[in-house]
Amino acid sequence: MQADKQDVLKRLNYIEGHLGGVRKMIEEDKYCVDILRQTYAIRKAIEKLESLLVDSHLHTCVPEGIAEGRGDEIIQELVQLYNLAGNR
Amino acid sequence: MQADKQDVLKRLNYIEGHLGGVRKMIEEDKYCVDILRQTYAIRKAIEKLESLLVDSHLHTCVPEGIAEGRGDEIIQELVQLYNLAGNR
Amino acid sequence: MQADKQDVLKRLNYIEGHLGGVRKMIEEDKYCVDILRQTYAIRKAIEKLESLLVDSHLHTCVPEGIAEGRGDEIIQELVQLYNLAGNR
Amino acid sequence: MQADKQDVLKRLNYIEGHLGGVRKMIEEDKYCVDILRQTYAIRKAIEKLESLLVDSHLHTCVPEGIAEGRGDEIIQELVQLYNLAGNR
Repeated sequence: MQADKQDVLKRLNYIEGHLGGVRKMIEEDKYCVDILRQTYAIRKAIEKLESLLVDSHLHTCVPEGIAEGRGDEIIQELVQLYNLAGNR
Repeated sequence: MQADKQDVLKRLNYIEGHLGGVRKMIEEDKYCVDILRQTYAIRKAIEKLESLLVDSHLHTCVPEGIAEGRGDEIIQELVQLYNLAGNR
Repeated sequence: MQADKQDVLKRLNYIEGHLGGVRKMIEEDKYCVDILRQTYAIRKAIEKLESLLVDSHLHTCVPEGIAEGRGDEIIQELVQLYNLAGNR
Repeated sequence: MQADKQDVLKRLNYIEGHLGGVRKMIEEDKYCVDILRQTYAIRKAIEKLESLLVDSHLHTCVPEGIAEGRGDEIIQELVQLYNLAGNR
């Protein structure tokens, strides 16, 4: 994990807090459209977190791995990440 | 919230537990590709939760709202949900 | 099809023209990153077209169908559209 | 463009033919849900085409570019492709 760890953990705190809010809304039988607006915001926050991790991966582990002769393995992982990112 | 509350809360528990695992991986500086595989799984679980909530909304609140004469409001919300679902 | 037909057909023309450009790039062995930038733009244009069709569907066929007593069928279709929209 | 050119062009033919079918459905005022089912299938086909192009890019241009000392540029392009893939 090479991305700014404090930034990543702060975003994770935010997501966990937001999920706690959703739990409360469900327990209190709030209107489902209002709950969905919150879960979409959480999904966006996770995608943003992923984007940071991918950026960091591409700028640190990828060049390092290639320099160390593990290029094939690194490329295989990138194919997989790309497909996961697009939910395919 | 009309979806099976226990099912929704169980899924939320799973997502929260999974996020806790990601936090641990980040704190222990695990490999970012392994962390990303977990965040993608979490994103999928949230999308599944949303799908349940939308299904429930369409089968309960939508027919009720229309029967009560709030059709315009209900339709406006559906347009918004559709656009949020596709992240547009 | 209730959306503004001329607008929808104009967007379709644009998408077809754009696809023709991608075909030319592929035939001329252009750089794959440049081709991908074009296919992403096409995908966005299709999503925008879908968004127009869904908006129109929700504002015309859905209220009409419900008024005609075909509510169950209409709701079933909306569940399906929502899931297709999110590629689930 | 390093992916199997014939395969990519064949997929493009399919997408163009499918779009022509959608144009016909719109001109003939078909039911919007049926049109949407077709546009979703087209979107899926474009995503599959993109996936092939990315796979090919990662296995050919990326190792070549890095071997030629253009690693920074290659990484920058991958960050951009990843974000475009997720429509972010």
